[in-house]
Amino acid sequence: MVEHDDTLRQLLERFASLEGAKILVHGGGRTATEVARNMGIETQMVGGRRITSPAMLRVFTMVYGGLVNKHIVSSLTAMGVKALGLTGADLGVIRGHRRPVTPEGVDYGLVGDVDAVDAGSLALLLKGGITPVVAPLTLGADAQLLNTNADTIASQVAKAMAGLYDTTLVFCFEKKGVLSDPGDEDSVIAHIDPPRYRELQEQGIVSGGMLPKLDNSFEALHAGVSRVVITRHDHLGDGGTTMTL
Amino acid sequence: MVEHDDTLRQLLERFASLEGAKILVHGGGRTATEVARNMGIETQMVGGRRITSPAMLRVFTMVYGGLVNKHIVSSLTAMGVKALGLTGADLGVIRGHRRPVTPEGVDYGLVGDVDAVDAGSLALLLKGGITPVVAPLTLGADAQLLNTNADTIASQVAKAMAGLYDTTLVFCFEKKGVLSDPGDEDSVIAHIDPPRYRELQEQGIVSGGMLPKLDNSFEALHAGVSRVVITRHDHLGDGGTTMTL
Repeated sequence: MVEHDDTLRQLLERFASLEGAKILVHGGGRTATEVARNMGIETQMVGGRRITSPAMLRVFTMVYGGLVNKHIVSSLTAMGVKALGLTGADLGVIRGHRRPVTPEGVDYGLVGDVDAVDAGSLALLLKGGITPVVAPLTLGADAQLLNTNADTIASQVAKAMAGLYDTTLVFCFEKKGVLSDPGDEDSVIAHIDPPRYRELQEQGIVSGGMLPKLDNSFEALHAGVSRVVITRHDHLGDGGTTMTL
Repeated sequence: MVEHDDTLRQLLERFASLEGAKILVHGGGRTATEVARNMGIETQMVGGRRITSPAMLRVFTMVYGGLVNKHIVSSLTAMGVKALGLTGADLGVIRGHRRPVTPEGVDYGLVGDVDAVDAGSLALLLKGGITPVVAPLTLGADAQLLNTNADTIASQVAKAMAGLYDTTLVFCFEKKGVLSDPGDEDSVIAHIDPPRYRELQEQGIVSGGMLPKLDNSFEALHAGVSRVVITRHDHLGDGGTTMTL
């Protein structure tokens, strides 16, 4: 999500300084859109949703697996982190299946839903002092790479690791956290538990695009993740909104 | 070098069936040229040599690090190999420096010469049953990725691993091996040692583009590699020309 060079650098510096075993999951949609445009590949949309054509999957493989992943990996390596880039295909760490055509007849193309995260392989890397940097591509049947939402990958990886580690899932986005007043960046709600979440929904404070993020967060908590943090890239490691059960 | 789908599949099937610890190093120049052309990036040449501009380095990062690497990794993973894609930046396995401007004033741009291969990290992966798949990009100063010749990477990796393993370096190319009659694909010379190499040079049987390949092979042997094989992709694992000291 974070593709401006300065923003990314700030994020990576903060990430590099985090203690303990850690995994970074990245996106790269804007860069992919730009590269696709440069290559004359049109983005196909159905009902406001991007369709992943074979040509776009090629672009995602180049941009997520290559350009963005290696930019992050080389930056972290230069900062002294033992960073290792991965897609779902590498060591078969994230297997998926192609999303079926919806009842309404929408075919998202080469989009993958996650079936399994190989927590054991990731744990072996972490035990070796390695920091996996994961691109949002899963491995489907017949060696087919599939485009998968980065937030989904992050949640699924966190849930899988929660069986082995005390796990914190952090989402970095453009706001400092969940805001009680959308117009005021300083109105970050420090902590949300299920009763507070119900209150915030009833009062209409949390709505729109924030709802699925929080729903996903609580789903991750119910699946064993210890806490979920929503924060801004330059606040990674302190601040933001923390969610717990 | 091997970018046709059928050819690559044959090669990967043979590679997957090889016994013992193994590392695959790939190129991707033709695909990179095609992607660059699609993106309207001109290939700059000086004296018949390609110059790596920042725009071309971006393409190499996308194609070598992303498209080609992940195609190979997903194919091998689907064949049951624990394949892991790497560039020189991943775990900092291959460090390089930017090639200095030549005395004639030729600046190759973002081209890297290899300084060090981290054989220890590669050995740890191999001991974990992992098969590294290495893209020809090295990590220079200031987190800069550098374009590096794939044959050079293969030689350097083989030399580094020779300190820890009995190492065979195999080059796959379009001929069945070193031919005693360039027009006859069945005239493969099965074995070349240094006296035979001198003979072949004196008789003019080995010349042209084959000379640097053989010179590099003997350099690798002198650096501790046990044997070097030059063979065609569909003969990987048997046949070809074997060089030893």
